[in-house]
Amino acid sequence: MNVGIIGVSGYTGFELIKLLLNHPKFKINYLAASAESRVEEIFPSLNSIFEFDVKVADAKEAAKKCELVFLALPHQEAMKYAKELLSLGVKVVDFSADYRLSQALYEKNYCEHLDPKNLENAVYGLVELNRDKIRSANLIANPGCYPTASILAIAAFLPHIDRDFGVIIDAKSGVSGAGKKASTTTHFVSVNENANAYNPIKHRHSDEIKEQISLLASTQIPTLFVPHLLPITRGMLVSVYAKLNSQIEPLEILRKFYKNEKFIRIINKPANIKDVAGTHFCDITAYVSEDKIFINSAIDNLLRGASSQALANANLMSGFEESLALPTLTVMP
Amino acid sequence: MNVGIIGVSGYTGFELIKLLLNHPKFKINYLAASAESRVEEIFPSLNSIFEFDVKVADAKEAAKKCELVFLALPHQEAMKYAKELLSLGVKVVDFSADYRLSQALYEKNYCEHLDPKNLENAVYGLVELNRDKIRSANLIANPGCYPTASILAIAAFLPHIDRDFGVIIDAKSGVSGAGKKASTTTHFVSVNENANAYNPIKHRHSDEIKEQISLLASTQIPTLFVPHLLPITRGMLVSVYAKLNSQIEPLEILRKFYKNEKFIRIINKPANIKDVAGTHFCDITAYVSEDKIFINSAIDNLLRGASSQALANANLMSGFEESLALPTLTVMP
Amino acid sequence: MNVGIIGVSGYTGFELIKLLLNHPKFKINYLAASAESRVEEIFPSLNSIFEFDVKVADAKEAAKKCELVFLALPHQEAMKYAKELLSLGVKVVDFSADYRLSQALYEKNYCEHLDPKNLENAVYGLVELNRDKIRSANLIANPGCYPTASILAIAAFLPHIDRDFGVIIDAKSGVSGAGKKASTTTHFVSVNENANAYNPIKHRHSDEIKEQISLLASTQIPTLFVPHLLPITRGMLVSVYAKLNSQIEPLEILRKFYKNEKFIRIINKPANIKDVAGTHFCDITAYVSEDKIFINSAIDNLLRGASSQALANANLMSGFEESLALPTLTVMP
Amino acid sequence: MNVGIIGVSGYTGFELIKLLLNHPKFKINYLAASAESRVEEIFPSLNSIFEFDVKVADAKEAAKKCELVFLALPHQEAMKYAKELLSLGVKVVDFSADYRLSQALYEKNYCEHLDPKNLENAVYGLVELNRDKIRSANLIANPGCYPTASILAIAAFLPHIDRDFGVIIDAKSGVSGAGKKASTTTHFVSVNENANAYNPIKHRHSDEIKEQISLLASTQIPTLFVPHLLPITRGMLVSVYAKLNSQIEPLEILRKFYKNEKFIRIINKPANIKDVAGTHFCDITAYVSEDKIFINSAIDNLLRGASSQALANANLMSGFEESLALPTLTVMP
Repeated sequence: MNVGIIGVSGYTGFELIKLLLNHPKFKINYLAASAESRVEEIFPSLNSIFEFDVKVADAKEAAKKCELVFLALPHQEAMKYAKELLSLGVKVVDFSADYRLSQALYEKNYCEHLDPKNLENAVYGLVELNRDKIRSANLIANPGCYPTASILAIAAFLPHIDRDFGVIIDAKSGVSGAGKKASTTTHFVSVNENANAYNPIKHRHSDEIKEQISLLASTQIPTLFVPHLLPITRGMLVSVYAKLNSQIEPLEILRKFYKNEKFIRIINKPANIKDVAGTHFCDITAYVSEDKIFINSAIDNLLRGASSQALANANLMSGFEESLALPTLTVMP
Repeated sequence: MNVGIIGVSGYTGFELIKLLLNHPKFKINYLAASAESRVEEIFPSLNSIFEFDVKVADAKEAAKKCELVFLALPHQEAMKYAKELLSLGVKVVDFSADYRLSQALYEKNYCEHLDPKNLENAVYGLVELNRDKIRSANLIANPGCYPTASILAIAAFLPHIDRDFGVIIDAKSGVSGAGKKASTTTHFVSVNENANAYNPIKHRHSDEIKEQISLLASTQIPTLFVPHLLPITRGMLVSVYAKLNSQIEPLEILRKFYKNEKFIRIINKPANIKDVAGTHFCDITAYVSEDKIFINSAIDNLLRGASSQALANANLMSGFEESLALPTLTVMP
Repeated sequence: MNVGIIGVSGYTGFELIKLLLNHPKFKINYLAASAESRVEEIFPSLNSIFEFDVKVADAKEAAKKCELVFLALPHQEAMKYAKELLSLGVKVVDFSADYRLSQALYEKNYCEHLDPKNLENAVYGLVELNRDKIRSANLIANPGCYPTASILAIAAFLPHIDRDFGVIIDAKSGVSGAGKKASTTTHFVSVNENANAYNPIKHRHSDEIKEQISLLASTQIPTLFVPHLLPITRGMLVSVYAKLNSQIEPLEILRKFYKNEKFIRIINKPANIKDVAGTHFCDITAYVSEDKIFINSAIDNLLRGASSQALANANLMSGFEESLALPTLTVMP
Repeated sequence: MNVGIIGVSGYTGFELIKLLLNHPKFKINYLAASAESRVEEIFPSLNSIFEFDVKVADAKEAAKKCELVFLALPHQEAMKYAKELLSLGVKVVDFSADYRLSQALYEKNYCEHLDPKNLENAVYGLVELNRDKIRSANLIANPGCYPTASILAIAAFLPHIDRDFGVIIDAKSGVSGAGKKASTTTHFVSVNENANAYNPIKHRHSDEIKEQISLLASTQIPTLFVPHLLPITRGMLVSVYAKLNSQIEPLEILRKFYKNEKFIRIINKPANIKDVAGTHFCDITAYVSEDKIFINSAIDNLLRGASSQALANANLMSGFEESLALPTLTVMP
């Protein structure tokens, strides 16, 4: 089955290519970016492994060559291509925020929405929570990295927490989450031997998390979200704090909620970026202290937080086994 | 005025030596460790700068040579020396936990207390909060690094937070906080490209913070403390979350509370390790979101969290200007 | 075909396990270390992926369960097991130095040799140079990481350099090369923001390189080798300097020498650790300046410098395609 | 004595400010950059320490306010200001390459020289080698970081090496050497867990080193120079390789050559970035192996390789003690 990637030059594009090269059913048949190039020029480590033309993005050409297209584009750009590709009968997995939020929240956080019709039918691609809807979807909104790690941590505990108090999320991400663009923020000297919160309270992922967990809880859940930048390349660690409404045994609740989920590991020690980096796993644990709970999850921000999650969605949309070619072995040490 | 350091071979010993070499009044007249050596052998970068004998620790010898001694020893070791030094009329600044907690809490977290009499008179050396008591103290319990950054962040807000809910502290520290001892935890390959919580909920600094802020608030403040290890050498970042009992303007409260404090900087962006590393500063900011507050502080864990704080205490105990030789210029970039 | 690993608890053991889990023909049937354990306890990231008993090492038991055994043991330990395994008809790939040097040089650098008979028949497992001998070998001395990157860089140029002058090798390695043992040298605080040469001139790999290139050149080649430690986890960069005996076009010589070699990439810019980390590739380039040459190679020290090289050898010894399950995709960004 | 800095916004400008704030005689009376600003806005860690206007650079204004000006500008820019400042009777220490090379070599490596008259009288500011000339100079060409560490390593051995063979310099630098500008090269994700040579053979510092050591040797010394980028913020390590023309005792030669030099430390183990970072020291050692020598030096690239060296020059030019306010204590751990 032929697939394509539009917006291939970033980190998530590269991760997706590497996953697809190991996939037994998907074949990369189209790569596009904002300028013509060769994929092995953009990523020299692909030399002699995978050499392929990178075209200037064109939805019609993509539609001729592919049954499914991954969009690894900035928000606003993505919906233009998604709209056209869907109209041409191509399935779409979108990495951007364009189809993740309700229209009102989207327009509050980003910009005017140009494709409200498809937005209504888009499925939020968090596999463990929406598996059935994903199978029949034509358009997947691939979740953000912070929302993935946060929602997977919180979901099991929604019946057990004080919903008036809500959740406090202290999240830590590697620098690859900020993208490939050179800036003061991503300069080695700024990042190395440093750590800091950024956009506290008002990060765009805050509303994405809040909307999704409120949907799950069928009530508004106040959400305080503070992301931090860490001096590491890849990986994400999330600490969630909440107030309990009753005494619980947290690991039992997690084990029951994620029973039979192959890519969620319930662990009995604090979560660790090294144990998930390079994989599709989300490791989760939780500790209770009096009336409060500390929930702790770790993912690879570029894989489970982007590219391998996109692939899991694409597998389901295509009628394949969900776990096909999903990475399980860490890149570490 | 002659001073000494017992337990000189660790990171905080080294930082203290460097500070004392720039001090106009204190003169290092005694250095001790568990084995005889030379200070320039333990720290080769001191070659041709400061070359001095390191003795096997002996309280009597120290008392002959010094009016004030800094103890950079493990807990339990420290109180043995403190007791003897005090009995010989020497002032003591203790880096360990031995005199930081009430006896009951100490014995719950550490071991039997061997010097309860002096414990009663020890002053908790957080200068901004206990300045007057410190001036007349003979024994200072130099605060832990996590408690320093946490208490300085919380103190101003104690009247404004829901005391039933208490505080949630998500703290991040550089590896030097774990000490110089080689272990799996401090191995470069374990730490690099990684991050993780450790001892969540039950870290010993939790009770130290709780006891101090409860004293300040004159009521028990529930405290949930989760420390994290970051892949950096020095520096500490603390995020405190609490529920407000009224609408407040957080920066105004901070500015008023820390008026005229030279080493507390109230900033209007997230705190940043690079801006304080190498200095005695504690940078603090805070953000309100609906009924919650996010308070954010940064310190150098080895200086404000240990050695420069000890020096500030020693300055006060000796009748000197508090700020004498306290470092103000970052080591960065 | 059943294989085993003795000495599984280090970094190279872990890398080898991950490679074998993707191998279509080899099946792990025996794992051993110095103490009984479970592999998923030693490497928690293997939880739910590969769970297996780790036995106390026993050659007879290994021989019952495996046709080929990888020894990831310290030198001296390795030859004891190799000797017994070979006597029981098991093929051996040895990661240690025990069979890499002639007896005289081995005993100069290490200790008395306990298995001189097998030493005579051991094949130095640098696949590009000894492919045919490897196919029929029962015992492979898997090359050291420094020798791998150095010899692959130099080999093509041996006819073109001044053999009296010899070669100067300035090599840089990540910390995983120093092994998993906690020590002052591998403490995060010692390594981070630092870099230094170690064992200059007298590192044991110096004689290994010298002996191998002297064999290739059929004459003694003076070799000055200086290894450096870098603050990275994995990867190795080697700079070789030599004097030319004639004008050459260095990239042509490399391309010709390594024609049809899938895992040697001749590049026309400086070599880069990120482009090879996680792979079996060795990237090589060279620059001429007047009568001197600068040759530059990069490998993953744990893969091409240990575990994937061992697997390439095992593939050949077993009559399989050499490239079976050798990794080609970087772990980066 | 009033001094100024033009081009204050980079790393070396910041280091120089910190040094000057501790200087007993120099007073910062003028700061300039390409745009108007405040120094505490450019460097937030200076808040409450040193708050000062940053002007748009203007030589006449600088001349009114200062007796000596440091130019931390890009090459070509620097000579415009130097020329005007000198004509107004102001002493100049120039951080750029504009006055470091003879006109012919300068124009080969950079661009047309706009101030050849002053170039003739400029003094190369390597204090240990040109102390007397510096005392009476009005214009100092402050050496590059690579040339500083390389020349200090080589100088003592020039009488003992084969001058036809010359020297091979394998140099490693932290990222701050590449400047504050955001680029793909300085992106955290590009640098972290990576290392690579850059501009091998043809880096501009190559001719600077060659010219200086050839002047010292009174004959042309072939120089092969390969710089490498390391994933650290500050520090530089240089390995020099050469062929000896006689048997020597290298440490004795170094000790004799640098007798009474306070800021050169001859050490008997490999040089180490941590031991010099934050200081004006250059640590040097050397090892002989048969007919070859390995010389190894370490400096702080921003201090001894730029700002503290500039200050040492300014001290001498102003008739002060050379060592005034030069940093001696490392920033580490």
